[in-house]
Amino acid sequence: MPNFSRRTFLAGAASLALASRRSFAARSDLEPIYAEIKKRHQEAIERIQRWIHQPTIAAENVGGEEGVKLAMDLFGEAGFTNVTRIPTDGKPGIFAVYDAGAPRTVGLYFMYDVKQADASEWKLGDPWKASIVQKPGMGKCIIGRGAVNQKGPEAAFLAALHAIRGAGKKPPVNFVLVAEGEEEIGSPHFPQVVRAPQVMQALGKCMGIFMPSAGQAIDGTTDVTLGAKGVIEAQIISSGEKWGRGPSKDVHSSLRAMLDSPAFHLVQALGTLVTPDGVDPAIDGWFERVKPLSAAEKKMVADVVAHGNEQQMKDQFGVKHWERDVPFEQAMERLCGWPTVNIEGLVGGYTGQGGKTVLPHQAVAKMDFRLVPDMTVDDCLHKLRAHLDKRGFNDVEVVMTGGYDPNTTAPDAALIRAQEQTYRRAGQNPLLWPRGGGSWPGYVFTDAPLKLAAGHFGLGHGSGAHAPDEYFLVESENPKLFGLDDMVKSFVDYLHDLAAIRS
Amino acid sequence: MPNFSRRTFLAGAASLALASRRSFAARSDLEPIYAEIKKRHQEAIERIQRWIHQPTIAAENVGGEEGVKLAMDLFGEAGFTNVTRIPTDGKPGIFAVYDAGAPRTVGLYFMYDVKQADASEWKLGDPWKASIVQKPGMGKCIIGRGAVNQKGPEAAFLAALHAIRGAGKKPPVNFVLVAEGEEEIGSPHFPQVVRAPQVMQALGKCMGIFMPSAGQAIDGTTDVTLGAKGVIEAQIISSGEKWGRGPSKDVHSSLRAMLDSPAFHLVQALGTLVTPDGVDPAIDGWFERVKPLSAAEKKMVADVVAHGNEQQMKDQFGVKHWERDVPFEQAMERLCGWPTVNIEGLVGGYTGQGGKTVLPHQAVAKMDFRLVPDMTVDDCLHKLRAHLDKRGFNDVEVVMTGGYDPNTTAPDAALIRAQEQTYRRAGQNPLLWPRGGGSWPGYVFTDAPLKLAAGHFGLGHGSGAHAPDEYFLVESENPKLFGLDDMVKSFVDYLHDLAAIRS
Repeated sequence: MPNFSRRTFLAGAASLALASRRSFAARSDLEPIYAEIKKRHQEAIERIQRWIHQPTIAAENVGGEEGVKLAMDLFGEAGFTNVTRIPTDGKPGIFAVYDAGAPRTVGLYFMYDVKQADASEWKLGDPWKASIVQKPGMGKCIIGRGAVNQKGPEAAFLAALHAIRGAGKKPPVNFVLVAEGEEEIGSPHFPQVVRAPQVMQALGKCMGIFMPSAGQAIDGTTDVTLGAKGVIEAQIISSGEKWGRGPSKDVHSSLRAMLDSPAFHLVQALGTLVTPDGVDPAIDGWFERVKPLSAAEKKMVADVVAHGNEQQMKDQFGVKHWERDVPFEQAMERLCGWPTVNIEGLVGGYTGQGGKTVLPHQAVAKMDFRLVPDMTVDDCLHKLRAHLDKRGFNDVEVVMTGGYDPNTTAPDAALIRAQEQTYRRAGQNPLLWPRGGGSWPGYVFTDAPLKLAAGHFGLGHGSGAHAPDEYFLVESENPKLFGLDDMVKSFVDYLHDLAAIRS
Repeated sequence: MPNFSRRTFLAGAASLALASRRSFAARSDLEPIYAEIKKRHQEAIERIQRWIHQPTIAAENVGGEEGVKLAMDLFGEAGFTNVTRIPTDGKPGIFAVYDAGAPRTVGLYFMYDVKQADASEWKLGDPWKASIVQKPGMGKCIIGRGAVNQKGPEAAFLAALHAIRGAGKKPPVNFVLVAEGEEEIGSPHFPQVVRAPQVMQALGKCMGIFMPSAGQAIDGTTDVTLGAKGVIEAQIISSGEKWGRGPSKDVHSSLRAMLDSPAFHLVQALGTLVTPDGVDPAIDGWFERVKPLSAAEKKMVADVVAHGNEQQMKDQFGVKHWERDVPFEQAMERLCGWPTVNIEGLVGGYTGQGGKTVLPHQAVAKMDFRLVPDMTVDDCLHKLRAHLDKRGFNDVEVVMTGGYDPNTTAPDAALIRAQEQTYRRAGQNPLLWPRGGGSWPGYVFTDAPLKLAAGHFGLGHGSGAHAPDEYFLVESENPKLFGLDDMVKSFVDYLHDLAAIRS
């Protein structure tokens, strides 16, 4: 789920002056394309459904081969050429180009995998059936795993290319497309795709890269996010066997009188990772590379805070206080500018109903560490290891399961200025947000040697990524929300803004 | 599982000079009873099977009514009179007497419930079928839930009463029997059974009370345990809702930047409960009432250590060191004389495969606290609460799910001296052990006002309590282990020793 930004938290809380979607100010020169979009509405819906029908789940090793083939077919049908499978040590990536003979080239980042789905939890239908369901106060939605994350928005972008070609036109920019099939497991092999020489060379010509996304919150607001925190997901494991002190299997808990406890060993190791009040990272050297928010970034936060509803956010999370009772603005600055150490889950010993008198041989903390510029995954992993070693926790294992470096894109990048322009033309009043709290592998584009501007773009709405009943709105009855055709239009417009914006 | 003592740990490690079971020195005056035991062998086996066929599981609220009725029938058939159901706030208890016109009266503690059983884990057969299976190197065993814990041994005791009556004799002592159906969930209502006026009055006349048990370890050794540690089983719960600071539901982990973490709050609370090396309780005042082991108790430990095999024990648990690298004798002193704080299990947030980027709203530690004389459950719970409150963890809940005070019986109690005498006559060389590391509700008998001697008695062997393929040996091919008939004999002998021992 790459596009996790401020809006996700402010959903329902914004009090921005909202323009109706009906105010979408179409350009007259693009009218033939808009007409084609309308004509191809059903075709565009069916494309989304066709894609959802193919489950491709890296975490479960499901549908990989079918998934990569279908994605390559979809790209070819939309006009991409040189559609190439890029082998990796995991699922293959895809590389494709679209030469429109335009002066500028734009990068596209797609994923063809989806999160797992447990059909028994879905009230609105089979996750792979892609049924059309009427949602009250919203309109007709496609229900299915991947509907909003990310097949719906990606297929909407492909629909824009079909419409352009259907109207007898060429896209106003060229494209370089890179796709992966492991986004939902943390993109472990995506660098191998991007670092392939022909991919690297092609991306080097791009003015920036974006991922199609349904950018409207349920209240219709949209924002422009200038990067993402990095993340390390890791398991911290304390085991008696490794330690040589606790038991090597679960034993009767009376033996606690003579045997050490790997679970308490874990508790003590975890306790050293945060400040005594449990709030900030306390890992040796953790803040060495932390770059404070700039004055410009603080200004963006202040703008968002001025438009936000603090009490509504607190109610949404069920809290009475922000950490350390800091004021709202400072809490929001922490959200985009401060590293975190989080326990995602604790698992050890007996986890069933009631109790069981065992001394467990092992305990595990599932952790995530969010990173901000200029922290890096490698440096932080090294610091975490050194921190634990120094305190006598040499035996406590740190097993990284996924990680991204943070990424940042400048607000004055042409890619970003074009976004703002297109959003404003569509009646939106997008606020800038310095950095999403969630993470996506944008660093492979923003870091050297490519140093591309990177982001997400797309009007339209959907929700339920990673949850049951994921949906993507295709025919809107809500004046604040864009349906599929208007979303496709937003892509057409954006491409033209990208072609025209001063560099 | 009440009878959890030193032997469980020393199984296979003992190097005692073992007498063969064939040396059982029967008294000639009891020959008619012994003959009756042999004659009724099949009847005794069928009684055990009949009892196992009836699952009675308090934790799952299964078979309660059928279980209490069957137990009452079994007691009545064995010669008990006035078999009375004692209602409690949970499952009913049973009270019964057996007036043999003897000068002395002995108490009996029975349980009619069993631990849960997952049939899919049982290799040797349906847990409720009570099949007879040949176990290599051992002999014919009954397989089933409750086989050794505690229906087999209890039924063996009833078989002794049937044999005595069958031989035209009367038991040499009178009996007062109390039984419960909630032993496996920590006997929460057993005090209500014992405190019933007619039960209290009857128990007041007893020279002591014992529970029938299969007292032989797999190497044939037997010991005499003089009490049990107490225990508090409790869940320690940190929840955002209660705290008012963390989230009240699981939220995206990026929010960790502005929200407190109930999981880290738990980690920090747990960290205060033990010394910095994770070994000893560090709860304020926890050691105030701890009575050190007496010289006599230390002598018992030294005797056991002299007969034990330290390396074999270490290998069994997979450890290279005892806590704090203390020598074996000190570790064994801790096992019977030192309180513990143990994490049985940790559960919080995402506990599935891999990771999930959530900030959990709740985390729970399943704990047990072993108590030694003169600690009490009530006092310790109060101290734990005060300790947490003093450190700012007022919101962290402590929910006790079960608890026993410790209990102690003097080695010179007639009940104990008779045990040693019977065991020695059977060729055993029982060592005294000051206090089992496991727990049973003996405190309701040993504490004021009853102040009874209390323990377990019975030769014979079985294992797998609380585990799959629980068994009870009924026809032994192993010269070190007693089969069912010899076990029944041991009860007959013990009753006569109890009747004759100097008070």
